[in-house]
Amino acid sequence: MRIPILKLHNYLLISIQTEIDDQTAIKFQEDLLAKIHKTGATGVVIDLTSVDIIDSFIAKVLGDVVSMSDLMGARVVLTGIQPAVAMTLIDLGIHLQNVPTALDLEQGLVKLHQELGG
Amino acid sequence: MRIPILKLHNYLLISIQTEIDDQTAIKFQEDLLAKIHKTGATGVVIDLTSVDIIDSFIAKVLGDVVSMSDLMGARVVLTGIQPAVAMTLIDLGIHLQNVPTALDLEQGLVKLHQELGG
Repeated sequence: MRIPILKLHNYLLISIQTEIDDQTAIKFQEDLLAKIHKTGATGVVIDLTSVDIIDSFIAKVLGDVVSMSDLMGARVVLTGIQPAVAMTLIDLGIHLQNVPTALDLEQGLVKLHQELGG
Repeated sequence: MRIPILKLHNYLLISIQTEIDDQTAIKFQEDLLAKIHKTGATGVVIDLTSVDIIDSFIAKVLGDVVSMSDLMGARVVLTGIQPAVAMTLIDLGIHLQNVPTALDLEQGLVKLHQELGG
């Protein structure tokens, strides 16, 4: 399977709503970076509201994809991080310190707008 | 797999970017109707830009889901219908005559806004 990436104006929106396996995560990373390159998106919202739990591999991919997007010039906002997901990320040393977070997709877009000074 | 449904204000956004099998289509129908019920969404944009071809079953499910959403009070806009998909729909007698269509997600949201008199 492939995680759909929606383009809305200058932003890319992703909602992860199923448990994802390692291959899907890697594919998602590639797809997102390719789409940032292709569309010239300046912001990305990754919504994790429906993700109850993540394993170390997925957590690492997620941390990496945020850093990689940043390098490419697209600001990432993570939204809807659940308690167990937050615990896994910190346990694994993935602090995502400069990554803005928000409650849901709407709030994430508002945050992105603020971050980008729009 | 499950097709993610994104909620943005009063609208639900869906982008179908992979070939979907019958089971996924049925699951999508159920998920979308449940989400309309749960969120009270007034509009739905289904983006088919990445769908190159559909079979008769998926076409029927798509036609049905538009009618069902309409019954539930949510207006559906279809966006990015490719030539082969348009041909399949018409060949199967699925005319979707009262369904607004648009080029892409952005245009779809604009159309929805007009349709709903916003």
